Amino acid sequence: MRAEDVRRFRDETPGCAEVIHFNNAGSSLPPAPVTDTVLGYLRDEARQGGYEAADAAADRISAAYTSTARLLGAADDDIAFTDSATRSWQAVFYALRLGPGDRILTCRSEYASNAIAYLQSGADVEVVDDDENGQVDVADLARRIDDRVKLISMNHVPTHGGLVNPAEEVGAVAGEAGIPFLLDACQAIGQLDLDVTRLRCDALTGTGRKYLRGPRGTGLLYVHPRLRERLEPAMLDLHSATWTSPTTYRVEASAKRFEAWERSQALLLGLGAAVDYALAIGLPAIEERVTALAERLRADLGQVPGVTVHDQGKRRCGIVTFTVEGVPSGQVKQRLGEARINTSVTNRTSAQYDFSSRSLPELVRASVHYYNTDEEIRALVEEVDRLR
Amino acid sequence: MRAEDVRRFRDETPGCAEVIHFNNAGSSLPPAPVTDTVLGYLRDEARQGGYEAADAAADRISAAYTSTARLLGAADDDIAFTDSATRSWQAVFYALRLGPGDRILTCRSEYASNAIAYLQSGADVEVVDDDENGQVDVADLARRIDDRVKLISMNHVPTHGGLVNPAEEVGAVAGEAGIPFLLDACQAIGQLDLDVTRLRCDALTGTGRKYLRGPRGTGLLYVHPRLRERLEPAMLDLHSATWTSPTTYRVEASAKRFEAWERSQALLLGLGAAVDYALAIGLPAIEERVTALAERLRADLGQVPGVTVHDQGKRRCGIVTFTVEGVPSGQVKQRLGEARINTSVTNRTSAQYDFSSRSLPELVRASVHYYNTDEEIRALVEEVDRLR
Repeated sequence: MRAEDVRRFRDETPGCAEVIHFNNAGSSLPPAPVTDTVLGYLRDEARQGGYEAADAAADRISAAYTSTARLLGAADDDIAFTDSATRSWQAVFYALRLGPGDRILTCRSEYASNAIAYLQSGADVEVVDDDENGQVDVADLARRIDDRVKLISMNHVPTHGGLVNPAEEVGAVAGEAGIPFLLDACQAIGQLDLDVTRLRCDALTGTGRKYLRGPRGTGLLYVHPRLRERLEPAMLDLHSATWTSPTTYRVEASAKRFEAWERSQALLLGLGAAVDYALAIGLPAIEERVTALAERLRADLGQVPGVTVHDQGKRRCGIVTFTVEGVPSGQVKQRLGEARINTSVTNRTSAQYDFSSRSLPELVRASVHYYNTDEEIRALVEEVDRLR
Repeated sequence: MRAEDVRRFRDETPGCAEVIHFNNAGSSLPPAPVTDTVLGYLRDEARQGGYEAADAAADRISAAYTSTARLLGAADDDIAFTDSATRSWQAVFYALRLGPGDRILTCRSEYASNAIAYLQSGADVEVVDDDENGQVDVADLARRIDDRVKLISMNHVPTHGGLVNPAEEVGAVAGEAGIPFLLDACQAIGQLDLDVTRLRCDALTGTGRKYLRGPRGTGLLYVHPRLRERLEPAMLDLHSATWTSPTTYRVEASAKRFEAWERSQALLLGLGAAVDYALAIGLPAIEERVTALAERLRADLGQVPGVTVHDQGKRRCGIVTFTVEGVPSGQVKQRLGEARINTSVTNRTSAQYDFSSRSLPELVRASVHYYNTDEEIRALVEEVDRLR
């Protein structure tokens, strides 16, 4: 990515003038075209009425599906929109109706919301071993497969570290065994170049607010036809199904069977604008820059006495986690915030398997995006250096 | 409501200068304080970051619970926010885990999304008779109660007509029998003065976008402690539950157990602003004016040759439905739209029990709000008169 492009992206991001934002894995600073789309549409609703504005924007709403399908290498009918990545994930997971006797294979870095749902289902949850790089061990995954395994489900990128799980290799094992593979790409989408055919996943879930730079309150979902045809959603309404007679209903054929009728069309259009913005830049270019900036941040933080970087993985992404000796992570975040540097803190309630297994303390998470700069990295590292 | 108050409310509603809006049961025109709240907060997010803006607005977010609790006569802990009325409703209904052998009692005017969920559950759905006014017959409801009845669930106001079901009397029967009463107040909230103690409901669901004049993509939920204590939500995440160890989780105690972690705080604050706006006017005053305007509209439409008004109910509200002889309802809506008069069309897929039972055709729905005027009613009636 050329320096002048980065400058332009920063000029198009009002927040870049206000803060140094390293909380992109929480919620990115949106570019102006995203915010303007949402604000403009909300004004349309206020002037015309909510349904009347939606009728007038029908083509734009439809285009958001096409853009998202393009982002993932999918067909329009495979895409659904929800209000969060978790909602997208729940729509698929709970439709599988797993229970006692079934086995679910997941990874050690798995996210709390997913793990709580596994536990609630009553199925046996098995945490696949990590390999020597701290990412899911695909050979161990393959060894564990038997007829009782009804789902392989894991994150592509965890919430609390820089590793990128080898999702394509997992997908190959799942595909070979004919077991549904649900990929939580919440932290991956928008920073990594994703393709559902290459990933061989049956379902993929993502959010708008993180690396895609879309609005909060938006989620997206890809479901392959072979999976969705056998899944009746766990909850239905008059959009995901049609009430065909007093005693019958028919479930929608496309991935819209996992949507709900009511939603904010404003936020959906904002998500569409965010996807278009990312596509215009190009995901390979984004991935390259994000990865390089994060490696630099890890290297520079590693030079600061008392700082430990905790990221694992052979392949790594834009999320950097660290601790400062003698300074609680909450205090690190607060002190950085006073210098207008945004980071976040992540703890064991987000990822019990990994925090327990590695005896991790609370971590400071600094997640970089392509609009961050070397100067911002330097500012962060200098502030951290001052903390001790 | 004084004429000068109505003028002020219209001045505060940008859409009133643009359209004649009789689609308030679809989505109302929001007052400027609602739109300004949402837009202002979205700008804060763009400047500071999504989580950073939420931290700064924590008190305002909390105040939205307090306002909504006040609107319904509930406690703050009894309130949850979701992205739609349907989502709120599903959160309670599916948590009840009804199935074959259970009986659900509902009303003839029941809404599609609810009915589809009843059918999906596999429980026996029984449609309570209407009384001579076309509202749910409370005596028939009481006669049907036995040990297998696990839920009494119905709308307060249907989507397709002006009737107000006698929810308080239903609540009395349910309370007496110790059966959970789930009240769908999607079309009632914001136009009727609701109080959960008076209604004796165990759960009540509503939306922001209709009579409350809030943003699309917002829903609210009231759940009485006696019901929620026995209900584990059908879907959980790290907000509705806490991952306490690798193999355990703890469900949130308050009604927030029915929420999801990720949401649009902008829309939630907009809903809070809408509730505050309604409370400042006063729900009794709103109800009085909406009811009176709707009665006037019914009377005036009834004078137009070829027009049939289809509303039932002893007590009626702001929703008016009608047909024009010889003109399909879709065409009526379109022609009115060309005159910048917003209405909507409702058909049997929204309410199969009632449309089938009464052999109703597609209906034009003109739903009035307190900011509508006699002049607007006259304009609508004149346009309808011109259609034949």
